[in-house]
Amino acid sequence: MYDRIKGFRDFYPGEMAARRQATDVLEDTARQYGFREIGTPALERAELWTDKSGDDIVEELYAFEDQGGRHVTLTPELTPTVARMVVAKQQELSKPIKWFSTRPFWRYEQVQQGRQREFYQTNVDIFGSAEPEADAEILAWAADALTSLGLTGEHFEFRISHRDILGGVLETYDADVEIDEAIRAVDKSDKISQAEYHDLLVEAGLTYDQAAEFDELIAAGDLEDVKAFADTERVDDAVENLQAVLAAAEDFGAREYCTISLETARGLDYYTGVVFECFDSTGEVSRSIFGGGRYDDLIESFGGQPTPAVGVAPGHATLSLLCQRAGVWPEEAVTTDYYVLTVGDTRAEAARITRELRDRGHVVETDVAGRSFGAQMNYADSIDAETVVIVGEQDLANDEVTIKDMASGDQTQVPVEAFPGDATRPTFEDYS
Amino acid sequence: MYDRIKGFRDFYPGEMAARRQATDVLEDTARQYGFREIGTPALERAELWTDKSGDDIVEELYAFEDQGGRHVTLTPELTPTVARMVVAKQQELSKPIKWFSTRPFWRYEQVQQGRQREFYQTNVDIFGSAEPEADAEILAWAADALTSLGLTGEHFEFRISHRDILGGVLETYDADVEIDEAIRAVDKSDKISQAEYHDLLVEAGLTYDQAAEFDELIAAGDLEDVKAFADTERVDDAVENLQAVLAAAEDFGAREYCTISLETARGLDYYTGVVFECFDSTGEVSRSIFGGGRYDDLIESFGGQPTPAVGVAPGHATLSLLCQRAGVWPEEAVTTDYYVLTVGDTRAEAARITRELRDRGHVVETDVAGRSFGAQMNYADSIDAETVVIVGEQDLANDEVTIKDMASGDQTQVPVEAFPGDATRPTFEDYS
Repeated sequence: MYDRIKGFRDFYPGEMAARRQATDVLEDTARQYGFREIGTPALERAELWTDKSGDDIVEELYAFEDQGGRHVTLTPELTPTVARMVVAKQQELSKPIKWFSTRPFWRYEQVQQGRQREFYQTNVDIFGSAEPEADAEILAWAADALTSLGLTGEHFEFRISHRDILGGVLETYDADVEIDEAIRAVDKSDKISQAEYHDLLVEAGLTYDQAAEFDELIAAGDLEDVKAFADTERVDDAVENLQAVLAAAEDFGAREYCTISLETARGLDYYTGVVFECFDSTGEVSRSIFGGGRYDDLIESFGGQPTPAVGVAPGHATLSLLCQRAGVWPEEAVTTDYYVLTVGDTRAEAARITRELRDRGHVVETDVAGRSFGAQMNYADSIDAETVVIVGEQDLANDEVTIKDMASGDQTQVPVEAFPGDATRPTFEDYS
Repeated sequence: MYDRIKGFRDFYPGEMAARRQATDVLEDTARQYGFREIGTPALERAELWTDKSGDDIVEELYAFEDQGGRHVTLTPELTPTVARMVVAKQQELSKPIKWFSTRPFWRYEQVQQGRQREFYQTNVDIFGSAEPEADAEILAWAADALTSLGLTGEHFEFRISHRDILGGVLETYDADVEIDEAIRAVDKSDKISQAEYHDLLVEAGLTYDQAAEFDELIAAGDLEDVKAFADTERVDDAVENLQAVLAAAEDFGAREYCTISLETARGLDYYTGVVFECFDSTGEVSRSIFGGGRYDDLIESFGGQPTPAVGVAPGHATLSLLCQRAGVWPEEAVTTDYYVLTVGDTRAEAARITRELRDRGHVVETDVAGRSFGAQMNYADSIDAETVVIVGEQDLANDEVTIKDMASGDQTQVPVEAFPGDATRPTFEDYS
């Protein structure tokens, strides 16, 4: 017997039905916003991450050499791939470019609740607009997708910040601070002790006093205090941009879900402007539900024309935990409209009925295993069939079939030429 | 600038929209048959293929050692994975088990038309029935899916055979024949010369005279001749089973697409009974559109209880070539219901209209890039917007917006409180 690999999941039909329903909500909402679906490769050259993304993710790559000697990796996230795709067709694509896709990604991480080595995300990005409306539309889509799943502002919050606030404050220190390293420390701050957090800031170049001061300023999160502390154009602009995004989010219906939180930093190096993360309001799901933000320099660094960009990528694992916690996760079960049961040599007539019902779009099963009446009835029950159509030799001799409502157990005989007849979805009720 | 890896495709929105439409047809049809969607990992232990599947596929594996020292591979096809999943839950799953899924697979192959290294399949399988109705249901689903795509019996044919006919005939030879190797030779026979084919049969253990005789018998494809030649119970049973499957396919509406073709063998070693392949009737698409068959021993060989199984896996690449050849491939383009155009400081009102239209399920874009009237109109044109709603400062001062039909260019002003009003999908026609 073979086992599956640690951190990789099998999804059986019940659970998969719920996941499909949730994914459809995310994707249908994205389509309504005019995001267009794209398809992307599972493998890329490893340099797409080793060159730009920071050490943390590089350590987690499923990278290897292919049979042609290429240094390739299973993609750990989508952003460098979509950046590559924008660069490849930047002349022909009309802007803004608005793309979405749902697919698995892979990171060799510690497996824990809500974190597998194979995980699914729906990525939603806008390329070609530096305007706050683009950031706000990403937030609005995320809020719309979550509320369409049945969540409310009671269940989740978007914590929002701006990379230039952190970077702008850090660069005011009269010290040789590794800004990216310090920002990664901020990103980790809520998962480690304050002492460990300060240690990381000191490793990045601050003194302990500066680390404590910086921590206090950022944790307080007062935009006016931050502007006064830094007193630089960079921080003033960042605060202004953050406020403009929130004003656009107000018009787009997403402001109510947003909280300013300067400790929100995101772990990847390529972010440049507004960044945000979604959290369970109660904290019961402790990991972020998802994150996103602006990455205005990535396309140019990939050899493209300067192209501002902003995106978000809800992870399905933590999102399903939040939906379960909130009691809005779809039921993990399969359903069936009709089971067409054969008794004796009635296959041809049962097949006709089965085909006519399927032609009307219904989910219809019939016997493919040569089983007894009782075994078929048990099976119909196991797939939660709503109606069973019993096609028996004796009934057929009288030109009849039996329609059985599985919930009540009621049944009645109907003329075979009247079933399915003209009704779109005939049930026991129509004949009783 | 980074390039993508050879044999891996990027799908931009137009092409992706067509692929999504085709995939939806395959999946919706599978749902109507009561196949249930499952989710499966991209990585498995390499032994799932190295142990059972034959040398050809093993040479093409994207296999590597992960950071935990596991010998893993990107999955080259789905069958061993679903077999593993059946074994893992064989007590709880009610039978027959009917599963489907659409996802990419990976093989390090020679790249050519219709064959990439990353390729998509929709796998459809039935476990737990040895009856001919199960084979026939798989054929019926495939025929139904293809005709739902707009194809007809003019465009494709299913070539159908039985592994025990080939195996049964081969074992009648008074020679030490490697049956699996000989069957792989049959599988390759239509891609190589007759001399090469006979060489392969001789390598598998036949003499040249036997190879010629075998070739002639199989190519003729007469079931009575084959029975007479072999004169064994195994071949008699195989012919009887093949005929029973075709009779069930008649009841299920798929017989008309099937042609008996004993040269159809399938390259994988685990097939046991009926096997089939789908071909372009005109031969213009030269590779098989897809293949499938019965693999009754695989689950047991994976450590499970004996569980008969049959399945098929349409590959999307060759299927799209066939659809294109037949002129039924969906248009590769994006469409948009509404573009809400802002002129001046009208974001709040434009956002309200945008949200109300999206709430009705429409695809609606609005400006997120702070662009001019002309630039927005060009963009609306590029996304094929059906209706443009112009929300201008002057119009708004008169409590009006302008509705423009993009096909005709006609436009009219309507009271802002009447738009979108109560109509599900208001267009220029409703106000003109």
